[in-house]
Amino acid sequence: MNDPYRIALCQIAAVKDKTQNLDRAADAVREAARCGASVVCLPEIWNSPYDLKLLADYAEPADGPSVSLMSELARKNNIYLIGGSIPEKTGLSKIYNTSFVFDPNGALIARHRKVHLFDVDIERGVSFKESDFFAAGEELTVFDTDHGKMGLAICFDLRFPDMFREMNKAGARIVFLPAAFNITTGSAHWDILIKSRALDNQFYMAACAPARDLTASFVTWSHSCVATPWGDYCAAADARETIVYATIDLEYLYKIRQELPIGN
Amino acid sequence: MNDPYRIALCQIAAVKDKTQNLDRAADAVREAARCGASVVCLPEIWNSPYDLKLLADYAEPADGPSVSLMSELARKNNIYLIGGSIPEKTGLSKIYNTSFVFDPNGALIARHRKVHLFDVDIERGVSFKESDFFAAGEELTVFDTDHGKMGLAICFDLRFPDMFREMNKAGARIVFLPAAFNITTGSAHWDILIKSRALDNQFYMAACAPARDLTASFVTWSHSCVATPWGDYCAAADARETIVYATIDLEYLYKIRQELPIGN
Repeated sequence: MNDPYRIALCQIAAVKDKTQNLDRAADAVREAARCGASVVCLPEIWNSPYDLKLLADYAEPADGPSVSLMSELARKNNIYLIGGSIPEKTGLSKIYNTSFVFDPNGALIARHRKVHLFDVDIERGVSFKESDFFAAGEELTVFDTDHGKMGLAICFDLRFPDMFREMNKAGARIVFLPAAFNITTGSAHWDILIKSRALDNQFYMAACAPARDLTASFVTWSHSCVATPWGDYCAAADARETIVYATIDLEYLYKIRQELPIGN
Repeated sequence: MNDPYRIALCQIAAVKDKTQNLDRAADAVREAARCGASVVCLPEIWNSPYDLKLLADYAEPADGPSVSLMSELARKNNIYLIGGSIPEKTGLSKIYNTSFVFDPNGALIARHRKVHLFDVDIERGVSFKESDFFAAGEELTVFDTDHGKMGLAICFDLRFPDMFREMNKAGARIVFLPAAFNITTGSAHWDILIKSRALDNQFYMAACAPARDLTASFVTWSHSCVATPWGDYCAAADARETIVYATIDLEYLYKIRQELPIGN
């Protein structure tokens, strides 16, 4: 179970045409699997533009076409697929920002609904109120795989260190974070937050962002990356469309925990 | 109470001659006060070389000459003095790594004994076992001043985020950290740890290190710095002897907490 394995983060951009978004995601996942990744991750809100007013139009129930596609991609490519996130329609008036996770059989093995919604108002910076449109999830998400336990959080969840401590305690040795930070807080905080969560918990962090589109109403920071238990990046992208690959080595993780014991 | 105020971090190097260390500290504190600092901080273990085998020879009880000097410096210069740390002798066989804090009357208002001792063994890096010589403190340290509540931790304590969450909850709006990181972990982790503690807690962090001495048995990373509640530095030094000045602005702190609410 501690053999090194390869992960891939698909930093793709979403456009207005939903079919095109599904095709783009499928192409990226297939390419990542072909290049040896056994765990592939999509970005936050990959099937829709990140525009709060539009999200409801792209929302789907848990048996919709985006979820079906992800299940099929996982099965056909024999990979774990961390499905970034999509707007999820339920019986409620508000939608969820939800990540679905599939095993290599295409079975749904986990689901994370974004817990901490992005309600900020920064002078001369970004202003956003997700809670007008999204309902908040309430649960921590840790799931089992052939590569050990993995955690899952979405974007603004990253601001809350206790959540990552809990995932660590629950046995997660890597946390995937589909995340669309903006330019204001991304340039200021993205690296610090990701590296410090990895360093404090001495586990891996894999953050998958959408590629930047300067014509979009919400411009993302992008910069998908993988931080090691030592708190540095072993892989990182700029803002363009790309796939980020990294090797996850749990022996390295345990070596760091032994050399620098801080209770993990 | 929320008026901006100036702090100073005295990045001085300790030598073998103890009298010289006391003189050097006194000079630095006087200069910092003359330049407008109302809160002045000394580095970790400033009255002795940072050599575990020597520390006992420099250790003093809480009414020893180093503590008396600090009290006098605080009173004569009308400042709060965060006394870095010194090896403290008590009735125990082991000594403490202790920071004494004085108000502008020279009264002792707080004392922090380093809680987390530096026991690490990093391949091709640093190897150190403080617990052979030091006893561990057990208490969180937050104290009142005319500038609001302040927290205090020492060096390796920085690795433990819960301690900083607790100081935040107890009302600290700035945490002072006398700290002598080494080259291995300093280059890798110093910036991330200090900035992330500031960012997660949305308070100020002021880390005061000894200046680097390449001839010493323990070579320090140095780089004293002040991080803001936004997670960036408003002041930072290189490795040489210097005094770092910064203005602490609690209105700015509260503005950040309002614009980016994450529960602080």
